[in-house]
Amino acid sequence: MTAQLRPAPALHVARWLNAAESLSLDRLRGRVVLIEAFQMLCPGCVSHGLPQAQRVRETFREADVAVIGLHSVFEHHDAQTPVALEAFLHEYRIGFPVAVDAPGENGGLPRTMAAYGMQGTPTLVLIDRQGRRRAQHFGLVPDLRLGAEIMALIAEHEVGTVAPETAADAAAPGCDEAGCSAPEPQGDRPT
Amino acid sequence: MTAQLRPAPALHVARWLNAAESLSLDRLRGRVVLIEAFQMLCPGCVSHGLPQAQRVRETFREADVAVIGLHSVFEHHDAQTPVALEAFLHEYRIGFPVAVDAPGENGGLPRTMAAYGMQGTPTLVLIDRQGRRRAQHFGLVPDLRLGAEIMALIAEHEVGTVAPETAADAAAPGCDEAGCSAPEPQGDRPT
Amino acid sequence: MTAQLRPAPALHVARWLNAAESLSLDRLRGRVVLIEAFQMLCPGCVSHGLPQAQRVRETFREADVAVIGLHSVFEHHDAQTPVALEAFLHEYRIGFPVAVDAPGENGGLPRTMAAYGMQGTPTLVLIDRQGRRRAQHFGLVPDLRLGAEIMALIAEHEVGTVAPETAADAAAPGCDEAGCSAPEPQGDRPT
Amino acid sequence: MTAQLRPAPALHVARWLNAAESLSLDRLRGRVVLIEAFQMLCPGCVSHGLPQAQRVRETFREADVAVIGLHSVFEHHDAQTPVALEAFLHEYRIGFPVAVDAPGENGGLPRTMAAYGMQGTPTLVLIDRQGRRRAQHFGLVPDLRLGAEIMALIAEHEVGTVAPETAADAAAPGCDEAGCSAPEPQGDRPT
Repeated sequence: MTAQLRPAPALHVARWLNAAESLSLDRLRGRVVLIEAFQMLCPGCVSHGLPQAQRVRETFREADVAVIGLHSVFEHHDAQTPVALEAFLHEYRIGFPVAVDAPGENGGLPRTMAAYGMQGTPTLVLIDRQGRRRAQHFGLVPDLRLGAEIMALIAEHEVGTVAPETAADAAAPGCDEAGCSAPEPQGDRPT
Repeated sequence: MTAQLRPAPALHVARWLNAAESLSLDRLRGRVVLIEAFQMLCPGCVSHGLPQAQRVRETFREADVAVIGLHSVFEHHDAQTPVALEAFLHEYRIGFPVAVDAPGENGGLPRTMAAYGMQGTPTLVLIDRQGRRRAQHFGLVPDLRLGAEIMALIAEHEVGTVAPETAADAAAPGCDEAGCSAPEPQGDRPT
Repeated sequence: MTAQLRPAPALHVARWLNAAESLSLDRLRGRVVLIEAFQMLCPGCVSHGLPQAQRVRETFREADVAVIGLHSVFEHHDAQTPVALEAFLHEYRIGFPVAVDAPGENGGLPRTMAAYGMQGTPTLVLIDRQGRRRAQHFGLVPDLRLGAEIMALIAEHEVGTVAPETAADAAAPGCDEAGCSAPEPQGDRPT
Repeated sequence: MTAQLRPAPALHVARWLNAAESLSLDRLRGRVVLIEAFQMLCPGCVSHGLPQAQRVRETFREADVAVIGLHSVFEHHDAQTPVALEAFLHEYRIGFPVAVDAPGENGGLPRTMAAYGMQGTPTLVLIDRQGRRRAQHFGLVPDLRLGAEIMALIAEHEVGTVAPETAADAAAPGCDEAGCSAPEPQGDRPT
C-alpha cells in the first residue's frame, strides 16, 4: 500500500491536443487527476473507457477532478497518427485534454505507459490531490465503484461535492420509463 | 441545507421481508443507509432502481452501507400484495431486507412515503451515519453520481473503502471487448 | 418437418384481456400469428420477451401479423392472478390481446402450455396463415432472426410488407449518434 | 416504386480489403446484397451500422445474402486512409469484404456514394437477386425491420431460410436472465 503513495510517475508527452498549453501532474497538484489511457482503434476504449471519462468530467466539478486522456499507441502506429487522433477526438466529441504518449525506444511501449506499468488499453489511473497514484484499472471498472473511488480521494482533504444535477421536471401522475408518479405528494420534502 | 440535517423520518413498516428481525433507522445508526422505495409493478423500479440498489449492495462493504427496500404501494393495491411481493423478490433475486410501507389512512399515500414527501417510485434516499437524510432522488440517478454521493457520506467520519474487486485474469495480447493488451508490460506496476 | 405442418394446438383460455371478444386461432386464420407465452413475474419475459412482441406489433401490418400474449402461470399462482395481470398490462403499456392460459388439472402446467410442449417462459410461437405451427423458441431469439422468420411466413402466400417507416428528418452536416451527414448529397436518390 | 427497379448503380472501387479478388454486383447476381456504407471514424457506424452488418452475416446463409462494406470517406481523408482502415477492420474483427469507395473528382463525394445519392454514413442498401436496388436507409434501421426486409427479398424467387440456430441447452427449472423453466414439460413438443 505504501508503495503506491510515492509520487506518480511523470507524464512523457510528445504533444498535447485539446489543450491551450502543456499540462503536467505538477501543475494539476491539488486536484484529483483521472488519466484515461487509450488507443483510438481499441474497441473497448471507444465503447467504454472514453465515454466513462466523459461522464466523470460531466459529473464532478473541474476544481475537484481533472480528466486527461493519454493516447498510448503500442500497435498500428501507421494508423493511429496524431492527425488521425485529432479527427477521432473531433468526431467523438471528446473535449478534455489529450496527451500523445511519447514513443518508446526501439519500438517498445510508449514511455508513460511503460513508466506506469500499464498492461494495455483502456487503463484508468487515479492520482490524489498530492500527486500520488492511488488506483489503476485495466479494462472495465463499473461507474458505481469509480464514483466512490474518486469521491474518496476528493474527500481526503476537503469536502467535495458533485456538480448540481439538472432539476427534473415535475412528473405527471402515472408511470413512464423513469418511474411512477404519485397523484398527490404529501409531507415535508427535502429542500 | 440545514433543513436536511434533522433526523430522517422514522420508517412506518407493516411487515419486513428478507429480514430475520425488524429493522429501524435507529438500529442502523453508524452506517450509511440507502432506502430504495419501489413498487413491484413500476417498470422504472424493475429495470433501473432495484438493479442499482443491488449493485450498491455488491460494491460497498456491509459495515459501511445498509441497503433497504421500501415497498410503497400507492396504486394497484389488489395486485401488489405482500404475497405477490414475496414471489417478486424471489424471482428477481433481491436479497436485501424489504419493508412493506404501512398503508395510509383513507387510501392516501403509504405512511413512510408521505413522511418523506416522495413524489413517486423509484425514489432513492441516502441517510448518513448519524441518521440524517442527506439526499433524495426521484427517478434515475446515474451510477457515477450515486457512487460519489455514497462515498462522501462514508468518508465523513471514517475512511471507507469499496469491497475488493475480483482480480482480473491476466489478458493475452490483442484486443477483445474489454480492451487491448500490450504484448510486454514493462516498468513498475502499482501493487 | 412435416410433423410441424399439422394444425397448431387450440388455445385453452380462461379469460381474455385487452380484447373486445374472445379470439381463437381459427378466427385469426389468414394472418401470421405470434404467440408470446409469458408470466408477469418472469424477469426474462419482462425485459426481453414482451418488449419484443410489442416491437413486432409496431413493425408489421396488423393485416399480416396478429400478436397475442398468453399468460401461462406455472408457479406463484397466488401472486400472478388475473387482477395482478391486469395491473401489470396497464403499467407496462401492453396493448395486444392477452389470453389467460387455462389452469392444468391437479396443479399441472396450464393447458395451452402443455399442449404446445413449452419448456417455460418466455416462449414465442409462430403460426402460419394456414394455422400451422412453424416455429417455437424458448428464451431469447434475436430480432434479426425473428424479423426474417415472420417475413418468410408472410411471404408464403402473398407479398407482405413492413409498415412504412416514419420519415427521418433531413440531417445537418456533421456526425451525431446516429451517423455522419455528408455536406452535399448528390446523384439520384431512390424514391 | 418502378424507379427503384432499375439495376443498382455499379460500385466504383479503389481497392478491396478482406477479399481474395475483386467483387462486383454482377458477380453477386442471384444473391441478395447488403451494402453497409461507413467511415471508420463515424461513431454511429462503429456502434450500430457495422455490428448490425455482422449480425446479418451471421444470421443468413451466405448463399442467400452477401454482406459488403463500402468505405465512403467524405471527410478526414488524412485520417481514414487505407492503412488505417486495415487496422480498424482487424481490431473490430470485421471479416466481410470491404470496398474502398473511389474518390470523387475535385474533392467531392466518393463516386459510389454519389451514384447512390447517399446522404451520409452509415447507409445500408439492399439489392435484390436480380441486381436492383430495393431499399436504402440512412442512419439506424431496427433489426426486426431489417430482418423482414432481407427475407422479403430472399423469398421472392426461392424459399430462403435463416441459418440453423445453435441448440439451446436444456434449462434447469427456475428463472434466470433468459426466462423461467417449467418443472416438467409435458405434451407433444414440436420437432
